[in-house]
Amino acid sequence: MTDATTPTEWVLTISCPDGPGIVSAITGALAARGDNITESQQFGDPTSGLFFLRLQVVSSATREELVAALTPAFEGFGMTWQLDVVGRRMRTLLLVSKAAHCLVDLLYRERSQGMPIDVVGVVGNHPDLADIAAFYGKPFHHIPVTKDTKAEAEDQLRALVEELDVELVVLARYMQILSDQLCRDLAGQVINIHHSFLPSFKGARPYAQAHERGVKLIGATSHYVTGDLDEGPIIEQDVERVDHSRAVADLVAIGEDVERATLARAVRWHAEHRVLLDGRRTVVFR
Amino acid sequence: MTDATTPTEWVLTISCPDGPGIVSAITGALAARGDNITESQQFGDPTSGLFFLRLQVVSSATREELVAALTPAFEGFGMTWQLDVVGRRMRTLLLVSKAAHCLVDLLYRERSQGMPIDVVGVVGNHPDLADIAAFYGKPFHHIPVTKDTKAEAEDQLRALVEELDVELVVLARYMQILSDQLCRDLAGQVINIHHSFLPSFKGARPYAQAHERGVKLIGATSHYVTGDLDEGPIIEQDVERVDHSRAVADLVAIGEDVERATLARAVRWHAEHRVLLDGRRTVVFR
Amino acid sequence: MTDATTPTEWVLTISCPDGPGIVSAITGALAARGDNITESQQFGDPTSGLFFLRLQVVSSATREELVAALTPAFEGFGMTWQLDVVGRRMRTLLLVSKAAHCLVDLLYRERSQGMPIDVVGVVGNHPDLADIAAFYGKPFHHIPVTKDTKAEAEDQLRALVEELDVELVVLARYMQILSDQLCRDLAGQVINIHHSFLPSFKGARPYAQAHERGVKLIGATSHYVTGDLDEGPIIEQDVERVDHSRAVADLVAIGEDVERATLARAVRWHAEHRVLLDGRRTVVFR
Amino acid sequence: MTDATTPTEWVLTISCPDGPGIVSAITGALAARGDNITESQQFGDPTSGLFFLRLQVVSSATREELVAALTPAFEGFGMTWQLDVVGRRMRTLLLVSKAAHCLVDLLYRERSQGMPIDVVGVVGNHPDLADIAAFYGKPFHHIPVTKDTKAEAEDQLRALVEELDVELVVLARYMQILSDQLCRDLAGQVINIHHSFLPSFKGARPYAQAHERGVKLIGATSHYVTGDLDEGPIIEQDVERVDHSRAVADLVAIGEDVERATLARAVRWHAEHRVLLDGRRTVVFR
Repeated sequence: MTDATTPTEWVLTISCPDGPGIVSAITGALAARGDNITESQQFGDPTSGLFFLRLQVVSSATREELVAALTPAFEGFGMTWQLDVVGRRMRTLLLVSKAAHCLVDLLYRERSQGMPIDVVGVVGNHPDLADIAAFYGKPFHHIPVTKDTKAEAEDQLRALVEELDVELVVLARYMQILSDQLCRDLAGQVINIHHSFLPSFKGARPYAQAHERGVKLIGATSHYVTGDLDEGPIIEQDVERVDHSRAVADLVAIGEDVERATLARAVRWHAEHRVLLDGRRTVVFR
Repeated sequence: MTDATTPTEWVLTISCPDGPGIVSAITGALAARGDNITESQQFGDPTSGLFFLRLQVVSSATREELVAALTPAFEGFGMTWQLDVVGRRMRTLLLVSKAAHCLVDLLYRERSQGMPIDVVGVVGNHPDLADIAAFYGKPFHHIPVTKDTKAEAEDQLRALVEELDVELVVLARYMQILSDQLCRDLAGQVINIHHSFLPSFKGARPYAQAHERGVKLIGATSHYVTGDLDEGPIIEQDVERVDHSRAVADLVAIGEDVERATLARAVRWHAEHRVLLDGRRTVVFR
Repeated sequence: MTDATTPTEWVLTISCPDGPGIVSAITGALAARGDNITESQQFGDPTSGLFFLRLQVVSSATREELVAALTPAFEGFGMTWQLDVVGRRMRTLLLVSKAAHCLVDLLYRERSQGMPIDVVGVVGNHPDLADIAAFYGKPFHHIPVTKDTKAEAEDQLRALVEELDVELVVLARYMQILSDQLCRDLAGQVINIHHSFLPSFKGARPYAQAHERGVKLIGATSHYVTGDLDEGPIIEQDVERVDHSRAVADLVAIGEDVERATLARAVRWHAEHRVLLDGRRTVVFR
Repeated sequence: MTDATTPTEWVLTISCPDGPGIVSAITGALAARGDNITESQQFGDPTSGLFFLRLQVVSSATREELVAALTPAFEGFGMTWQLDVVGRRMRTLLLVSKAAHCLVDLLYRERSQGMPIDVVGVVGNHPDLADIAAFYGKPFHHIPVTKDTKAEAEDQLRALVEELDVELVVLARYMQILSDQLCRDLAGQVINIHHSFLPSFKGARPYAQAHERGVKLIGATSHYVTGDLDEGPIIEQDVERVDHSRAVADLVAIGEDVERATLARAVRWHAEHRVLLDGRRTVVFR
């Protein structure tokens, strides 16, 4: 994939139990090769006792050579690691229902803003957004979901994920709940946008709840999906100011802007390997 | 207090069941007197069916003359109304515990920023902040509260409110819960600052909860106090961005800035008669 | 267009020299008809001495009947006024070059978010964005502009504006400067988005300037176009936080989000008759 | 000062020409000692070709031992470096005129929020704020400045800086311009708060300018002071939303909140060695 003679920029992410010598072990191995670190961020979480590192390095090594050079560090510190090429587009499947704003936004950013995702397909439980997928040249899969066909629909989804070699699933206002089993199987690979500032207004109709409560800010939360609905690790949140004069429909419209911006940041950071899991929390190296 | 021969700027707030002719009835009565409306805001809440109006008017009338001119409208539409002189400083009692940031901020704004409050006293259930009150020339009342003395302490508080002719009580990080009875007696006159973005993280230790949940924004909520703790009508909310690297102590420090700014806005708007109650919600004419 | 027997919601905007009795004259005339004011905002500018009013009123009158009822007020106070039906979609022409983000955003909001504009055409001085116009079913007019053909191109533009009965022209990242004469002819009808927080970084390459200066926030400004480039009355501004690590290309990408959101708000407010001109400034009744 | 047997947390900042092996040289030297890096941030500026590093390390070494261990790296890469104890309070002199908000805020944060500054004195060219200094137990020096006494006043200031061993001078709304010579002598040690979003509205009366221009956001900028007034490297900026209804006096009051918050962040980051100079720009490791 990458040629040893042309220098490539790699992104390496690591997590392991905290302790002395971690950074030195990694940077020493790279320095010994003469490779140049261009970006580096680290965080030691005193609560979990875990250490997190993300760095970008320019190297003329092949992937195998790099891994070989780093393996003593990986093994010596019991590291969980990922190594990828900077800017490689992550194979992504978008799941939608009827609301278009997040879909339009992500497809636009893929095409025009250099977001490093490669949307390999769009799945809708309704057919409404097929034309938008078509405009961007994306295959659209209509997989309806009813109470009776839910298991079957998930099998189709699962088959698609395998067949298309999907690395990331984005629930872009997909109004179906994934089964616990699917959540577990795709742990850390599914990002959702929830239309409230979690943990406020969990569950259905959050804008109606927000209106009733008379809040002065409405928000959106992008998080990894776990079996525990709306409780997965939070990646990004944002809010917008509203006032008493806004009806529920206004809140929904204003909320759309916050949702798509929040989801877009979460997807970009994930695709750039900037998000690391730290138990129920995330470390985001922006 | 006001002299009929010098024009005074008045602020009038009104709420009543919505219907045609309300604004005309009020503005017609003022126009008939030749008075000039300088500011006006209105809102009809389709949910509650209530209409809200706030206006400022320059008039050479006495208070009695103004009320007389407006009484047909007041009575014809079943209005609840308030009439005050613009800029009159509202007699305010501040309740504190040990945290100084909101106290320092409000006293500073009273003295230097023209916030229209007249702080007639500071009550602390701890003596720690007496020196700050003294610096600003405010009487400090130490009223300790224990489980056994709570009723007695509230009697002292109540006596102080009456004796000092208090119009507004501000819980400036006062770490005691007022009794249901006191809440009812002072309904619409007590403003609290809650150190979270309600309804998230209700109850104790919200910053610890926020840290545990890994939120990316922390917030503060200023609201009227009702018997239902942390559930009173919200006046103002704000947030500040945080990330994974912030410990609970950092969240507390960052939160202080949001708290004092949020509380200051709520107090100012209340003192300027910009906040009207609409059931569980507020109408804020900023 | 509107039927006298079905009540219609109208929006009325007024500006005139400030003085007593203005609001009463208008609301009295409406109350005499039994019409119900549903929204009202006003502002007296002490600097310019002008008074501004925007109100929405539900009435079963025809337009002619309403105007007749209000004419004594209009004439008595020397009012400049506009009367429109709430929600009527304003005939809008979008001018673009190569950057797609504002175009995509406005067309999406017209179709899916109820923004009250009717995009009657898209003009590009480059052909690049024709496919996006086509997807949304909008006629695309390629009008190239060179030094030599500028006058001719403006004639084409002007013809299009007349032929399509255009009420609003939006420069959605249109990288050409309109002639002074065209600016004057379309005064108050042309909205631009400038990719900086004006008055910082006027002129070309604002993101490069912002990078060089090391600013910590980048912004966008939406304003009416006047002959004085980048100096027209400001309608809306917003900013986004950046840091030292952002290259010029990052600032451009981040800026796109601010630009499209800022422009969308300005266009919506204009189309809802919420923006009134006050000399070099605007009054925005949000 | 620090005892070799108790581990101390140090903060090390470095800048040097970019190239391979820098991080490894530093972290390797620390790892060889068994010291644990707890925080680390780096940035390579492709424009200036400079590399910046800030790290915190827990070590039982004395300062001399640490420097000795790092000297080969310092010298090998031509590094400019600083080594300090984390949390050590930086000796700070505050310069003020009549406006109290920044002074009150900084003194409060020093006392109650753990901002790592040690305010060793307050200088006022007016005597107005002496009582606030006194309340916080700070010596107040009244050094009036007139056209004729400016040189003499600066001599007094300079003497104070030396005598009190001042490391940081904060212009907390000090309405005098320092001479070029003094700016040069204290380069990188003087922080100013400018009451606008630079580079907008440079010079005097920025809020009046902002009002006249009708901007929708007002801002503040904290920057290092250089001879080139209002053009020094920017450390932090922030904005607040305003609308047409705000008079100049309102903008000033709203601006005060932005100013004090912006200045406080800049001072904290500087005192924590989070701000590094990169030509006309700053690198801020937040």
